[in-house]
Amino acid sequence: MKRKRVVILGATGSIGESALKVARDIPERMEIVGLAANRNAEKLAEAANKVRPESICLVDETKIDILRKALDYEPRIFAGEEGLREIACLTNGEMVLVAIVGTGGLRPALAAIEAGKDLAVASKEILVMAGEIVMREARESGVHVLPVDSEHNAIFQCLEGKLFESRKRPTPNSESFREQAIEHPTSNADNSALDVFDVRRIILTASGGPFRELASNKFDSITPEQALKHPTWNMGPKITIDSATLFNKGLEMIEAHWLFGVEMKRVEVVIHPQSIVHSMVEFADGSTLAQLSYSDMCFPIQYAVTWPYRVPNTLPPLDFSKLSKLEFFRPRYGDFPALNLARRAGEAGGTLPAVMNATNEVAVAAFLDRQVSFPSIWQIVEEVMNRHASVAHPDLDAILQADQWARAEATGCVKSLKR
Amino acid sequence: MKRKRVVILGATGSIGESALKVARDIPERMEIVGLAANRNAEKLAEAANKVRPESICLVDETKIDILRKALDYEPRIFAGEEGLREIACLTNGEMVLVAIVGTGGLRPALAAIEAGKDLAVASKEILVMAGEIVMREARESGVHVLPVDSEHNAIFQCLEGKLFESRKRPTPNSESFREQAIEHPTSNADNSALDVFDVRRIILTASGGPFRELASNKFDSITPEQALKHPTWNMGPKITIDSATLFNKGLEMIEAHWLFGVEMKRVEVVIHPQSIVHSMVEFADGSTLAQLSYSDMCFPIQYAVTWPYRVPNTLPPLDFSKLSKLEFFRPRYGDFPALNLARRAGEAGGTLPAVMNATNEVAVAAFLDRQVSFPSIWQIVEEVMNRHASVAHPDLDAILQADQWARAEATGCVKSLKR
Repeated sequence: MKRKRVVILGATGSIGESALKVARDIPERMEIVGLAANRNAEKLAEAANKVRPESICLVDETKIDILRKALDYEPRIFAGEEGLREIACLTNGEMVLVAIVGTGGLRPALAAIEAGKDLAVASKEILVMAGEIVMREARESGVHVLPVDSEHNAIFQCLEGKLFESRKRPTPNSESFREQAIEHPTSNADNSALDVFDVRRIILTASGGPFRELASNKFDSITPEQALKHPTWNMGPKITIDSATLFNKGLEMIEAHWLFGVEMKRVEVVIHPQSIVHSMVEFADGSTLAQLSYSDMCFPIQYAVTWPYRVPNTLPPLDFSKLSKLEFFRPRYGDFPALNLARRAGEAGGTLPAVMNATNEVAVAAFLDRQVSFPSIWQIVEEVMNRHASVAHPDLDAILQADQWARAEATGCVKSLKR
Repeated sequence: MKRKRVVILGATGSIGESALKVARDIPERMEIVGLAANRNAEKLAEAANKVRPESICLVDETKIDILRKALDYEPRIFAGEEGLREIACLTNGEMVLVAIVGTGGLRPALAAIEAGKDLAVASKEILVMAGEIVMREARESGVHVLPVDSEHNAIFQCLEGKLFESRKRPTPNSESFREQAIEHPTSNADNSALDVFDVRRIILTASGGPFRELASNKFDSITPEQALKHPTWNMGPKITIDSATLFNKGLEMIEAHWLFGVEMKRVEVVIHPQSIVHSMVEFADGSTLAQLSYSDMCFPIQYAVTWPYRVPNTLPPLDFSKLSKLEFFRPRYGDFPALNLARRAGEAGGTLPAVMNATNEVAVAAFLDRQVSFPSIWQIVEEVMNRHASVAHPDLDAILQADQWARAEATGCVKSLKR
């Protein structure tokens, strides 16, 4: 494979750092042509000085001078939300890794798709809020949407890129198989690429977070410090809290639904505390494929970049003699309501997933700010979801409007619950 | 897919029974057009009366009258070794499932390949003894060799049939990927289909058998009854003893080497007592894919028949909430010498794998007959392997000659060890 020319949106975050590490690890296969960050000018300059991309972007325009001073070379500099869309569409870029926390990645992602760039998606919001739009636009532009979440990347590996072959079957060399391939009935539904692969269930694994075994009557006293201690993954604060509430898994259920074109009822969750099996696919014949590796985001990021190739790297492979055991449990649905709320949002569709997502963001911030209790996060999300009149097949404006509405409602809920 | 027309060689054995079960389970996808057995005329007739294939075959010609009397319809009847080759080449057959214990499947398998039939291989001997010949003939005839062993079928699933795409890559819909696919360097070696899929290791799982945790100083007193109690799989006696000595896994290492075109050094074994993960593939990027299901041969048999399709059936899928835990351990190489002997045979190639296989057959029979101790099986195999002057790139005659030589040598060893 040639070097893939990648633009990273969210270069200073946890995923961005891992992506920079991957680029250092496989320099012949990955070239960074653009780096964008929200407001951390110093860290962006530091990364840019090392990697020396042709273009960089800082969303916070007030810090452009700090950025300029900290740079030791002269890249093209983009600024603001508009700059983020521009750097996503760089003529020189082939793939855009969207790793911006929150809704900020949505417009640049759609701009990149329109410009014919493949998308590597790390920001859950993109598919949770606008999965229908993003997947439709990607199909129409003929670009790929590659998952960077370890779970979705695992599923993608279990399907071995077949997602993009759509109606095509492996092309073996005997006539009898070729005939069968032609005769195989396919569905006419729009997002049914997977029908032909006969997927029965997508099984997302969840570590269960730090409170997997905690009695629910102790949830009220959980502190932000306790919730920020994730047992297996080292991630940013928002996603770490989401792992503790299981909203992270809930968002991933909706993501999987859009990404792989499977109905919500076929998306399930199993608790797997070791975070070695990153997710599984159960096929129509009762056989299951699973992807395994140590918990390091470099694995899925690299595969999103190098797919369909497997490229040697310095990441440690699994040592099965040290692995010893892998456990699987049924989630505590009653005690962790996030999963059922997400299923409800995903099944209803429309603007409800965006509302769930926005409300959760506000509630998590309030919990981290010690304004509300840990279980209040679920309570606030449910309350705002109940109040919402969902719009079916919304356009981007309707989605962003629902997002704003939900934030206002959530803020109101936080105030009423403040302790 | 159309109904696949299948001939079963070894219809009255354990795999044959499972294959009949699969045909009953998915009648729209699998049709049995031929059934063959070695000497169990009654059981063959019973199966034939139910399934009513057009053709049946009994190798033991002295029992043809018994067979005829037990039949309640009039199929075409083949007899003898020659009949076995003929039924393997039926005009009406598309796939031949070779499930004959021992070397008897070798000539019919080669005949089927020559006649353009796809092969579903359950008899380890075929690939262990003549992997080089079988895979070469299959390539030249443009037929598929599909693995029925649960381990190799698992690996096949992890590679998702890519084995047969050879140099071809998934054909995604963007220009950049298409260019890369063309540019991707491929090896020129003959059996290197997998090079392009960047497989780093094939990891065969082994239950470890009933003596996985037994102290080696107690091996001497192991009885056939104890050795025949397999903890997770219900199989025939020969393969059950092979599972206890780990020669089964040793034979599978050599099978994997030929079937997937990977060097012996890339084929590894890990002990997995639950027999849920049936094998794994570690790719060049350190990521691993695994196939999981309950231990039932119907899973791999069906996939071999329906590939590349996944066909709904009545087999129970995994219940992860009940699965609870999967364990992995390093094999006790020193205490179970079969693995290292098999690696040595596979690396040496030539006639040595056939010698190992034949000697093991004689030694297992002697153990079951209480003539020699359990650890004598390893001792006899090593002794005869040491005595053998291997022939490189042997033809079928040289292989069968080595097989005969080894049986005579092994019988001598048994006599000298008799207790």
